[in-house]
Amino acid sequence: MDDVTLARFAELAVDFGANLQPGQVVSLSGAPGKEALVRAIANRAYEKGAKFVDLAWFDPWIKRARIEHAADDTLEFVPPWYGERILALGKDRGAAITLSGPVAPGLLDDLDPVRSGRDRLPAIRETGEVVGRRELNWTILPGPTPAWAELVHPGLEPAEALAKLEGQLLHVLRLDEEDPVAAWRSRADRLVSVAKLLTERQFDALHYEGPGTEMTVGLLPGASWQAARFETADGIPHMPNLPTEEVFTSPDPTRVDGYVTSSKPLVLIDGTVVRDLYVRFENGRAVELNSSTAQETMRTIITRDEGAARLGEVALVDNEGRIGALDTVFYDTLLDENAASHIALGRAFPFLAGDEETAGRMNESDIHIDFMIGSEQLNITGITKDGERVPVLYGGAWQV
Amino acid sequence: MDDVTLARFAELAVDFGANLQPGQVVSLSGAPGKEALVRAIANRAYEKGAKFVDLAWFDPWIKRARIEHAADDTLEFVPPWYGERILALGKDRGAAITLSGPVAPGLLDDLDPVRSGRDRLPAIRETGEVVGRRELNWTILPGPTPAWAELVHPGLEPAEALAKLEGQLLHVLRLDEEDPVAAWRSRADRLVSVAKLLTERQFDALHYEGPGTEMTVGLLPGASWQAARFETADGIPHMPNLPTEEVFTSPDPTRVDGYVTSSKPLVLIDGTVVRDLYVRFENGRAVELNSSTAQETMRTIITRDEGAARLGEVALVDNEGRIGALDTVFYDTLLDENAASHIALGRAFPFLAGDEETAGRMNESDIHIDFMIGSEQLNITGITKDGERVPVLYGGAWQV
Repeated sequence: MDDVTLARFAELAVDFGANLQPGQVVSLSGAPGKEALVRAIANRAYEKGAKFVDLAWFDPWIKRARIEHAADDTLEFVPPWYGERILALGKDRGAAITLSGPVAPGLLDDLDPVRSGRDRLPAIRETGEVVGRRELNWTILPGPTPAWAELVHPGLEPAEALAKLEGQLLHVLRLDEEDPVAAWRSRADRLVSVAKLLTERQFDALHYEGPGTEMTVGLLPGASWQAARFETADGIPHMPNLPTEEVFTSPDPTRVDGYVTSSKPLVLIDGTVVRDLYVRFENGRAVELNSSTAQETMRTIITRDEGAARLGEVALVDNEGRIGALDTVFYDTLLDENAASHIALGRAFPFLAGDEETAGRMNESDIHIDFMIGSEQLNITGITKDGERVPVLYGGAWQV
Repeated sequence: MDDVTLARFAELAVDFGANLQPGQVVSLSGAPGKEALVRAIANRAYEKGAKFVDLAWFDPWIKRARIEHAADDTLEFVPPWYGERILALGKDRGAAITLSGPVAPGLLDDLDPVRSGRDRLPAIRETGEVVGRRELNWTILPGPTPAWAELVHPGLEPAEALAKLEGQLLHVLRLDEEDPVAAWRSRADRLVSVAKLLTERQFDALHYEGPGTEMTVGLLPGASWQAARFETADGIPHMPNLPTEEVFTSPDPTRVDGYVTSSKPLVLIDGTVVRDLYVRFENGRAVELNSSTAQETMRTIITRDEGAARLGEVALVDNEGRIGALDTVFYDTLLDENAASHIALGRAFPFLAGDEETAGRMNESDIHIDFMIGSEQLNITGITKDGERVPVLYGGAWQV
């Protein structure tokens, strides 16, 4: 990216995505290969009055060394100051900006997947708590690197691949618009209005039907649907995901029955690719899990805690978004989950609960793993308390 | 560096420098350009049973953005979790490995030096406390980068400059020996035995005499000399500096009289070069300071606080060391201070005091600035309480 593009990207991240307020401390998460973007964002943050930009740098090669050599019983260890940092940032009402996207694809492929599954870093458990309490205004955006471009566009020369990936990211980020913020406001308005509608309909359950998928997910009466725009507890609006194309809620973790097959590869936070994921649920619990790659890793992950085998999120993605239309697997959840409707194992979003009782019924877990099940062939139907069936999203087109 | 050299470097850092113990958490401090060394060290640490390698990554371009844009009254702010991390690491009896050496020479040159001076990061106040309590086994080694090589060898092609700097560093680190640890053990034994001897001699003062230098420095009866090898409170020996060639103590800050002339350029932490430094002391205090470059900067620095114009350290460096012989200015205190005998304005080392009373008599300051006065022409003589004069180091050769 040239300097002008870097500056426009940074402005979108800081001014609109995180909506950084003067005097805030901002956590900035990056990784090798993303230096130029990280520095542009830090610069913009200080221009907008940040009190401090706290860089959180994650080097996957160091993680590889750990998985390779560290003692088995240490692999789940996280220094206590990692969580304390996030809790303190939340308490101080800070901001957070994260650059997503694979850094070193395939780096852990030859290692023991069970050991890899034990080390969840750079994910930190306390992040979920702080986000759940809406203490931070935060945003995640994709940060392109040559290695990522090669993964997504393996047929192209490295420079071409990078140019193509960057072009796609600028497109889905609406940075190819003269006024990206206006474009985002309009898209967000649309998604928020659908979320409002779904919340009002008070469906008792959703039924999913398509190739390899036949599942009913119970919904919680006190849980709302949300989209695009969040607000902190102090009322700072922000865009947690850029791009975002989803409308989502947290379901009843005890009422999920049937089976789903992923419609796109799932890429774990450490770059592991999970293909052809099949999960069968009984009474909310994943009782069978198969995949053609990283099966043992996934099976280990869902035994991590009581909630790891239950759903924390269901998200609907229409075909008006920009990601699905590119028909590209980005190997990055931020993008791929916005390409198609998806569900997530693990932690729910208590901020979607209107009351304590509903929050208490939502799923709890240290993990949160989204995977895509949506496609042109998937139909999602709402079921009311009276058993009425109402078309919601058929082949990516809203029916509500 | 090729992989074999990286592995040998990492082994020296982890096994010998920090003397990492199985089960320890290790803080690993690096910066852009040092990725390969950082990863080799992390790998070795995990091989040696580290519980966790906690990367502390410092990006000076983000610091530049801060100095450029942040509000004046925020520049001294350090997030509380920076200090808490170090304190927790010390409490847990962790280890620390730091790679020194300029990362982006001149990066802050066009910015307001007063604002730059307010932001002391990556230095963290609590580090001094934890080191003072001897809670960590730690080591600092030089980590070469192309930018550093260009600074040290500006006349060479970039690749040649880097090769030359790396060659010099491997030489001073004894990594060009078949058994670097044996070479270091022998060198450390020599330095430690001199330190022991000097401590036993209980000199009342040292007299310095050479071209441009004629100075007497009073010593504190309760202060010991140290060198090379430190031990944690729990008895883990380690090598805080690699390379190290000095034998040092903290003198009586009230009994320094005479004048000194620097024998090599002094490089300040922000890269400013001070040449031909002349300082005259009366009753311990610098009463006259001249230099051919950065004179005003130095005069400002020694007015920073009460102790800034007094000595906190005297260090003797013999001509058996490897750094001075290279006749190279490295622009890195770790190396440059070990090239020749030096003294330091500012903070003393209370851990050298045998008792509280002696510690209380040592100099206190926010600054600690080493500058070299040693040369082939400098003779250093010990003066006993009875006025006897005992040759100590004449032209770089030990007389004791």
